[in-house]
Formats: sequence, C-alpha cells, structure tokens
Amino acid sequence: MTVANGITTAAEAAESGKDTQGGATVRGAAAAARIAATRLSTTIGSERNAALIAVARHLKASSRDILAANRQDLAAAREAGRSPTVLDRLTLTGQQLHVLAQTVRALADEPDPVGEVADGTVMPNGLEVRRIRTPLGVVGMIYEGRPNVTVDAAALCLKSGNAALLRGSSTARHSNTALVRVIREALADTSVPVDAVQLVPGTGHAAVRELMALRGLVDVLVPRGGRDLIEATVRDSTVPVIETGIGNCHVYVDAHADLGQAVAILLDAKTQRPSVCNAAESLLVHEGVAPVFLPMALAALAARGVTVHGDERVRRIHPEVVPATEEDWGREYLSLDLAVAVVDSLESAVDHIRRYGSGHTEAIVTDSQRAARRFVAALDTAVVAVNASTRFADGGQIGLGTELGISTQKLHARGPMGLSALTTTKYVLVGDGHIRGGAAAPLP
Amino acid sequence: MTVANGITTAAEAAESGKDTQGGATVRGAAAAARIAATRLSTTIGSERNAALIAVARHLKASSRDILAANRQDLAAAREAGRSPTVLDRLTLTGQQLHVLAQTVRALADEPDPVGEVADGTVMPNGLEVRRIRTPLGVVGMIYEGRPNVTVDAAALCLKSGNAALLRGSSTARHSNTALVRVIREALADTSVPVDAVQLVPGTGHAAVRELMALRGLVDVLVPRGGRDLIEATVRDSTVPVIETGIGNCHVYVDAHADLGQAVAILLDAKTQRPSVCNAAESLLVHEGVAPVFLPMALAALAARGVTVHGDERVRRIHPEVVPATEEDWGREYLSLDLAVAVVDSLESAVDHIRRYGSGHTEAIVTDSQRAARRFVAALDTAVVAVNASTRFADGGQIGLGTELGISTQKLHARGPMGLSALTTTKYVLVGDGHIRGGAAAPLP
Repeated sequence: MTVANGITTAAEAAESGKDTQGGATVRGAAAAARIAATRLSTTIGSERNAALIAVARHLKASSRDILAANRQDLAAAREAGRSPTVLDRLTLTGQQLHVLAQTVRALADEPDPVGEVADGTVMPNGLEVRRIRTPLGVVGMIYEGRPNVTVDAAALCLKSGNAALLRGSSTARHSNTALVRVIREALADTSVPVDAVQLVPGTGHAAVRELMALRGLVDVLVPRGGRDLIEATVRDSTVPVIETGIGNCHVYVDAHADLGQAVAILLDAKTQRPSVCNAAESLLVHEGVAPVFLPMALAALAARGVTVHGDERVRRIHPEVVPATEEDWGREYLSLDLAVAVVDSLESAVDHIRRYGSGHTEAIVTDSQRAARRFVAALDTAVVAVNASTRFADGGQIGLGTELGISTQKLHARGPMGLSALTTTKYVLVGDGHIRGGAAAPLP
Repeated sequence: MTVANGITTAAEAAESGKDTQGGATVRGAAAAARIAATRLSTTIGSERNAALIAVARHLKASSRDILAANRQDLAAAREAGRSPTVLDRLTLTGQQLHVLAQTVRALADEPDPVGEVADGTVMPNGLEVRRIRTPLGVVGMIYEGRPNVTVDAAALCLKSGNAALLRGSSTARHSNTALVRVIREALADTSVPVDAVQLVPGTGHAAVRELMALRGLVDVLVPRGGRDLIEATVRDSTVPVIETGIGNCHVYVDAHADLGQAVAILLDAKTQRPSVCNAAESLLVHEGVAPVFLPMALAALAARGVTVHGDERVRRIHPEVVPATEEDWGREYLSLDLAVAVVDSLESAVDHIRRYGSGHTEAIVTDSQRAARRFVAALDTAVVAVNASTRFADGGQIGLGTELGISTQKLHARGPMGLSALTTTKYVLVGDGHIRGGAAAPLP
C-alpha cells in the first residue's frame, strides 16, 4: 500500500519483497530496496565506508568467477555477431577489475555526502534552522552493456546512503549477475543490508517499463548511456529522472583571442579525448581573425588527423575542406570530425550556439572582458568556459570528487554532478517551545 | 524546430509565436515566452525591479477595471451555483488588490536570486570555478480559481528572471484576463518584454495537456492548488514539475516532553491556522505521559473547538471522544479535527508516521537529546521540528523571503521554497589558456 506521497511501510514492503533475487517481481525488488533504504538512511559514514572496503576486497577475491561470467557474455555476444564497440564495452579484463575494485576502495576515503549542513541560521526568535543533506532513498540505474557501471553505480549509491536497483543490458547478464552476487556477499558481512544492491529481476523492456512506473517506491532513475536510452527514460518515466545529456560543445574564437592559445584550446577540446561528451564538435571563428587563425588551426587539426567540415566562408579560404551540411551543425560526432564556421560577430556566434547547442558546454577564447561577459551571460548552458578547454567540464577537474555524470537538465543538478546529486535535503528546526501564535519561549 | 535539448531559436519561435494573446496556440505562446526568457536572462536586477514597481503602480491605477472583471466572474459563478468556498477564493476586493500590489512592490526590495554565486573555488592549476544562479527560463503556472495567484506568480517569475505562462481556472477568466492585460501594459513601459507574462490561450483541459507536453519549450511547471491538480500534473506532464505536496503533519509528544510546552505547541500547530498544509493533523502521545498529558491536551483542544478522533487507547481514558477510523490517520483535515493515538515508544511513533505521513513536516516535543536525534534521523520528510510548532515550516519563518510553496518532492527543492527554487545554476570556468592534455599556462 502506498499512501499520500508514496511512502510505503516496511511491513508492507517486506510482504511483497520476499525472495527478491530469485524469480521475483520488479515491484518486489523495489519494495525490498525501500526497506534497505530506510535502514541505510540511519547508517553513519563509517558503516558505509566499511561496506565499500568489503566490496572492494570481495571483487578482488572473486575475480576468477567474475571474469568467467564475463567470458560467457562475450562468447554469446560474438555468436550474435555484435559489433566490436559492443564487445569492447562488454569486456572486463583482470586488470580492469582490479582498477574497478581500487576505485570502490578509494570512494571510502572521500568525504561523506550525507549529513553535510547545506546552510543554516538562527532566526531572530531563537529558532535554529539547518538544511542537511540526506540520501534520496531508492535509486534506479538503467544502463547499457558495460559491466563496470554495475560496480560503479552500486558503489556511488552505497557511499551516498541510497539503495541501488540496477538494470543493465541483457548482453552483460552473466557479468552483472556475478558482480551483484559478489557485492551482496560482501555486504552480508557488514551492517549495510544486502538488499541495498539488487539487480532488477526479469528481462526485456517490460521490466524497464515497470521500473519507470514505480513512482513513490523508486525515488529517482539515472539513465547512463546513449542518447536513445536517456530520451526514452525521460519520456516514459513517471519516476523523476536525473538526465545526463549529449554534448554538442562549441569553441568560439573571438576577434580578441590570443590565437596561439586558441589553437591549443581547440586541439585539446577536439582531440584530447574525442569520444566523450565534453569534447568540442564545432568551431566558430570571428571573421576578423579567420584569415590568420584558420590556416594555423586547420594545419594543426590535420596533423592530429581531424576531418574538418567547413561552411562556405571556411571553404573560400580552404577549398579543400569537406563542405558542412545543415546536419553537421547539430551533430555530436564523438570522433575526429569538427564542424567549422566563420561568423560575423560574437552575437552571430551566440545565435549559432543557441540554435544548435545542446546546453552542455560552450567555450570562448578572448582577451576581451566585454566579450567574455557577454558570452557567459547570453548562453543558457550547463557550463561556460572562458580561455579554457571544454574538457574541463568534468567533476574531477572542478573539485567535485567522483563524478556521477554531467547533467544538461535544469532542475536538481546541472553540469558535472558529484555525489551530492544523489542526495536531497531535510530542514531541521530546533526550538524551545517555539510557537507562531504567541510569544516564543526565550532560549535558556 | 527543436534541436538537441529543446533549445528553440528566436527566429523560429517568433515565427510561430505571433499575436500570442489573441486566438493563438499554446505552442505559440510558449515560443513567445522563450524569446522573452532569452531577453530576460540578460536583464540586470534593477531592470526587473523597475518592472515590478511598474506592475504594482498599474494594478493600483486600474483597480476599477480589474474589480469590474472580477464581478463578472463572480456573477457567472453564482449563476452556476458554485460553492461559497469557490466564491470566496474567486473574490477580489479593493483592499485585497491594494495589498496584492503592495506585495509586488515589496518584492522589488528583496535580494536578487539571479547571479548569486552558489559556490566557487580556484583549482590547483589556477582554473577559476564559479557556480552561479540563473533563471530557469519559461515557467508554466497551473492553478485554480484564485485570481491573486495570477499576480503573485507573474511577480515571482519577473523577480527571478523567468517568463511566466499562466494557466488559471476558467472560473476566473475575466479577472485573469484583466490582470494580465494590466501587467503587460505596465511592462510595455519597461525594458522587460511584455511576453514575459502571458495567459495560456484556449480553454479547457486540452490547453493544459498541450502545455504539459511542451518539454524543451517550457522549462518547468508549477501546479499550485489542491491535491488533484498537483497529482494530475505530476502524472501527465513530460515537462519537469515543481510539486507542492499535501501535509499530513504529526506532533509526537515524547516520554521526556515538557508537557506544558507540548500543549502550547500542539494548540499552535492545530489551531493557529488550521486550513494550511503545515497545520498538524495527528497527535501521537507516548504511553508513559498519556494519562497526564491527554486530559490537559483534550481540555485545551476542546476549548478551541477541536474535534478529537481517538484510537482505542485514547478512548480508554476519554470514552467521550469520536473513534478514529483507519482513514483518519491518513487525512489532511484542514479543519478543526485532530486524529490522536497513544503509542508504546518513539519507534512506534516513527513507524506510524512512516506509514501515514506525507513527507511534509513532523514535530517532536522532548527534552531528550537522544529521542530528538533518533526522531530527526529516522524520518524521511521535508521538515522536522524539535520543540517547535509545525507551523514554522514556512519560508518567511525560516528566513527565505517570499515563499513559492512547500515542496514534498526530493529533487531540486524540498521543504519551503524561496525564489531560488525558480533558478538553475551555470558553471563558469575561467582560465588563461588552460588545457587538460598539457601543462596549463600559469596565471600572470
């Protein structure tokens, strides 16, 4: 039974949640997660850190079983003729598993996101006001065929005091089952309940659809993966979603740019790691510097193997360049391709980005305060970089610790998300007989 | 055309958004709001404050027209046989309109929620990191037949730099049309675009459903009103929702309570303003103090005209009390009724609240540190009050300034929401040629 805002009692949850990891229902697993979340919400940081340390130890100790399960998935995927990219993402090596375990272990040493006083004050009547961070509760993770996300997501949830409902791809079924079994074995020796980490039972899209409908039992869904997965989750879920978006990031080289700096930033943004969402996909060049900058930039890009898709004004200077189509301006290449346009002004660059940008990260290279101020103010985007590579839109690079992803939504969390994105807050008001109707009792 | 994350260009928006206040479409109004939001996002606080001052002045100057329109709505509602509650909510008096205008004027003097640096740092490599508050963009408000909400919502949006799409009840059609006309006339004399405030065109639920589907054009929907309205919006909207929930608030009187303080808090929580969401609806009394406390409490409640609905243990001491049914524990009475139960322990009180609470506000009266600590930690709720009335769950009472409502959702904002709930954040990174691939240039 779900009452009012969907709070489900422990007793009722227990009833429907029995035997959650064997032939049970999605709702049953969620109900068991709710009980685990209630217990987790009163754990102290040292208990959760001990759980992470135990998980890391068990992952190392059971690596043989995990790798065997992974080989089963790989064999099946090969037989099904899956692409090399799919196989690559699916593969877990002994070395990767070791690094994964170390990452889990390292999380135990990070600051606790739970209990932090976000802000607080004492009102003139003596009422103490504190807003403290608390876990969200039950977090559903939906992801594709990367078994490392199973470990990663479970560890992030444990650290932040949330129960994890994990829904990976069926491609990684054996790997995920083995990983979650090992994680639960580790939790059995700790004060964290084993149902803090569960695989969503069942296969196919029906189970995912069921998960998306469990508003009240599941507090948030975090889709991690490609654009289609994220869009489908946002569209179909009545459970609130933390969305990580695509990145069509631009570098704008202003009339007042240091052109040497601009080349370095462009190369870094495009080529330092082209397959990630904060890599640059488009370059906009102010017409005042285009005749000097483009030859420098295009030579440097060519030397790094980048294919340039240029507009007509680029091709007037460099006729050898591939012509850009309308589609190029909106693309997230995630490859060594770059769309390049010459613009009349900063305003034209802003208009172009407003039209084609994905609200992720936009960079300007300029020495002009005025230009930087205008660019920063005019763009409605999660991150704006001034004289810095788009690649700095990354939790680790801006001091957030372990990153959950980069949000392009506006509510709850925007831009790189640290662990605190997996928390909510609770107001704690402490008085000494304070009432509104009459005079409050004075503090002693 | 909507690309990637739904950013629509000004040109395209303009095309579909012509003539938005006369026979236009919901989408057209939203597109015009998007253009206004883009302009608003670069206004400075003094421009938005000047707009608020102009709106307040015009509301006073046009009060005769507004009140005449309101009388039309009232006459129609009376003819349709609407209830006294509906008529009461619909009524605007000259005095109320004057107070409303003063509230708008006062908002101009509050701190600007836009541009605030939420946090910031300088990384070891010299990269400056700031997270600043920016407007959400286009805010849709859906509400019932209270014309004062039209003014209130428009003013909150103007202050926070958002464009407002207002959708009131058709019962208040003439009043809302007059109010929005006056507000737009006021804006015409300022640097804030008139399309910053619009009524959603069209009538009936079709227009609301269309609004709920405009993900990408509308950034957030804020339903303000009863439970049915809020639940329907949450269920049907693909646009993100800021939800204000119902309040089934409890007062728990612990074994270690100061009983005089407990009576005062209980009376304040129940009777100071029984019709609001932070009023208490249930009382839980520890069995150790029930024989002494209940006679005191019940006498005081009776003197204030409160009807008590008691469980069996209450009725053993006070057989005259109305028996509570299962339904009573989950009710938000919003009237002079109170459900009362005796519980074995703090744990039993927590279990009861977990089962029936709505995640709004829960209060404990106790002198025991241990009991207070347990109560605060165990409950998953927006606000917990220790030795203070539930009525302090209010933005004005905890220093937030003008309150948008009280959120019982967990993402974005929880508990009393100030104007900052109508903002998002943007990371601004400032470097001096910073790249990740190589060594960053040192700061000069």
